[in-house]
Amino acid sequence: MKIPPVKGTRDFYPPDMAVRNFIVDGWKKVSLRNGFEEYDGPIFEYLKMYQIKSGDEIVEQLFSLTDRGGRELALRPEITPTLARMVNQQINSLPKPIKWFSVPRLLRAERPQKGRLREFFQWNIDIIGIDQPLADAEIIFTTIDYLRDLGLTPQDVKAKISSRKLLAAVLKSYGISYEKLESLYVVLDKKTKLPAETFEQMLAEQVPNKDTLAKISSFMQINSIHELKGLMKDGSEELAAYKEIAKVLYTLKIMGVGDFCVYDPSIVRGLAYYTGIVFEVHDASSDLRAICGGGRYDNLLRDFGGPVISATGMGMGDCVLEILIKEKGLLDKQVPKRHIEYFVISLGIDEQADEEVYRIIARLRSMGHSANFSYKTAGLSKQLKEASAQNAKECIIIGDEFKDNKLVIKNMATGEQKLVNYDEFLSGLESG
Amino acid sequence: MKIPPVKGTRDFYPPDMAVRNFIVDGWKKVSLRNGFEEYDGPIFEYLKMYQIKSGDEIVEQLFSLTDRGGRELALRPEITPTLARMVNQQINSLPKPIKWFSVPRLLRAERPQKGRLREFFQWNIDIIGIDQPLADAEIIFTTIDYLRDLGLTPQDVKAKISSRKLLAAVLKSYGISYEKLESLYVVLDKKTKLPAETFEQMLAEQVPNKDTLAKISSFMQINSIHELKGLMKDGSEELAAYKEIAKVLYTLKIMGVGDFCVYDPSIVRGLAYYTGIVFEVHDASSDLRAICGGGRYDNLLRDFGGPVISATGMGMGDCVLEILIKEKGLLDKQVPKRHIEYFVISLGIDEQADEEVYRIIARLRSMGHSANFSYKTAGLSKQLKEASAQNAKECIIIGDEFKDNKLVIKNMATGEQKLVNYDEFLSGLESG
Repeated sequence: MKIPPVKGTRDFYPPDMAVRNFIVDGWKKVSLRNGFEEYDGPIFEYLKMYQIKSGDEIVEQLFSLTDRGGRELALRPEITPTLARMVNQQINSLPKPIKWFSVPRLLRAERPQKGRLREFFQWNIDIIGIDQPLADAEIIFTTIDYLRDLGLTPQDVKAKISSRKLLAAVLKSYGISYEKLESLYVVLDKKTKLPAETFEQMLAEQVPNKDTLAKISSFMQINSIHELKGLMKDGSEELAAYKEIAKVLYTLKIMGVGDFCVYDPSIVRGLAYYTGIVFEVHDASSDLRAICGGGRYDNLLRDFGGPVISATGMGMGDCVLEILIKEKGLLDKQVPKRHIEYFVISLGIDEQADEEVYRIIARLRSMGHSANFSYKTAGLSKQLKEASAQNAKECIIIGDEFKDNKLVIKNMATGEQKLVNYDEFLSGLESG
Repeated sequence: MKIPPVKGTRDFYPPDMAVRNFIVDGWKKVSLRNGFEEYDGPIFEYLKMYQIKSGDEIVEQLFSLTDRGGRELALRPEITPTLARMVNQQINSLPKPIKWFSVPRLLRAERPQKGRLREFFQWNIDIIGIDQPLADAEIIFTTIDYLRDLGLTPQDVKAKISSRKLLAAVLKSYGISYEKLESLYVVLDKKTKLPAETFEQMLAEQVPNKDTLAKISSFMQINSIHELKGLMKDGSEELAAYKEIAKVLYTLKIMGVGDFCVYDPSIVRGLAYYTGIVFEVHDASSDLRAICGGGRYDNLLRDFGGPVISATGMGMGDCVLEILIKEKGLLDKQVPKRHIEYFVISLGIDEQADEEVYRIIARLRSMGHSANFSYKTAGLSKQLKEASAQNAKECIIIGDEFKDNKLVIKNMATGEQKLVNYDEFLSGLESG
């Protein structure tokens, strides 16, 4: 009986797994050097946990299940609710700031399309307990540190940075009520995702007053932080919010990644829970979805029953990223090819020689060397071919010379062969 | 609103994650050096896939869900069905033998108890396409190679090896019909798990004939491979099966792990699908469940709609293993502690000095060094304390000396301090 894989999931055959490991290992390496510690949670949580945090968008995308005890559970579509739960549970004993990262497997019951699957991996970095813009800058720096490490340049990708706090203050100064903000954010977030006409129409529906509409449209056009400064009134909420984002951009410049960063008011982020700096990284040609996004969320821990603690973070999925670096030609040359150090070959001169293969293989492996052998009792050329297919560095050949207690070592790159004494070879390994 | 984690799952705070990474990284390292390649599949598959392979035991333990398209899915309780599906899908293009490993997250809706959780990680190694006992030996060797690497000795753990094929042949020679075998395996598998009396009673129910019962009981007592040999008739099926297991044990001796291995007829394995060599590793004191188990399964790929191809494999969960190595005192001293290379401290002499922290931090990280700093504008001793808590190797201190373009480097192990020129420090890093 043949059964297919489930739609929107991936099978990771060894070459695919090598790509996934390349991406995930890079995320881990950059997280650690930026001072983040790894955590993880369960693959499912109580369904209601996701209902607390997210707008309807994410709840519709949940894979939900009921266990034998009648508990309503959901496969995690994101890890931030788990993070909030875990931090709240140990809030008093955890050293602050909390700088954590994770690479969860996530599940969303979406329609699969380019760069969006039902099962994917997502890099998450979060700093909890620091309300300074410096923490936002560090999140953005860490993100760019990874992308730059991959070989992406400021010509390839841009971190588009904005501020929910600034937007809220500006909208408030235009007379928009607090209650109106959330639905307006959803529309403003679509500015670059919809045709201009459709966007203008949706915005006009939200903002009937033409004067106000014109002001908002004009604010959304400003993409220079310097131009922005001129508009800020002394002592205003806008000015305070402006200073934050200016500080983030300045810090990123000092950190050497200024070329990757731009102020962009069209970055609003769909989710309701952002409260301050928000950002997304896009490829310069912009025909892919955002590579990643994040921002400050100051109320989440409180919403999960914890204290009021400021937090900022970023999430980057593996699907869009993989498409991008493949398109840029950065993937194939960087993903490590399968290789082994030694391939041990018996030419079958006698039974004892065959047994020596297992002895040598076992000894090599136990000493930390990767080693393999052929299950076929084939001739030299076939076994050498198998060794080549596995990208072996050296072949150890047990042939006629073994009667004189000698092995042939063949360097697979140069083709060079040398005869070595068996006992010396073994003791050489011990000391190596 | 406070929401707890789901029963039987684990939160991996950074210290727990370090333990999990220690275990998983060890599995990966040993797999690779033994010539296995990594694969993975989706976290869920069609429910019916698990119904094909496994007895009722595993199907009862499934977390099942229905997606919006009405598909009946199940969270994977094991990865072998996925392996069979994936191999069958590419059976013609995959180079043979297939030596693959995986470290899947698995889910079982069991009652949580010591060493058994609803969510866990499991190391899987499989060799597909080789029917020689050598492949079984290599699976067992790889398992022991890992356990030995952890520091476990033949006094701590034993690989108990048996053969379904031998058992089947022996039972047949006693007149047990083929149809009876499966239910008899289930009882025989319980020999060491039940009180002797209960076991004898269950066995007697399966085998009403007293003579036959006595023969079976007597066979199940033999735990010496040499004694076994004496009972085998020339040309019998039993002798052929005996030769296989003898070859496995002999090969393991040559591979240097003979001391870890014993023949043990009480190893039967519950699952129906084993067809040849079977084994389990137990701790010597035997009060824990099996650390791992595995064996040959020659019909699985065919049962999944593929060709008849021989296969052998092993699965080891993280829960029992972690308990064991914790009990043996092997865990704490081996799990790497969090550490960073540099902690950069500003004493706040002026704004430019504060900014240099971010410049240095960014530069260190981009060059591959782990580096951190304090978000607090605290005095030296508090910042040094924070550096110590993060296990920093060196502190880079920006103080009064910075006016003369100099930094203080403090070795945190020795307490030694030296004054270095800032530019030289930076260029030293570049070339390092």
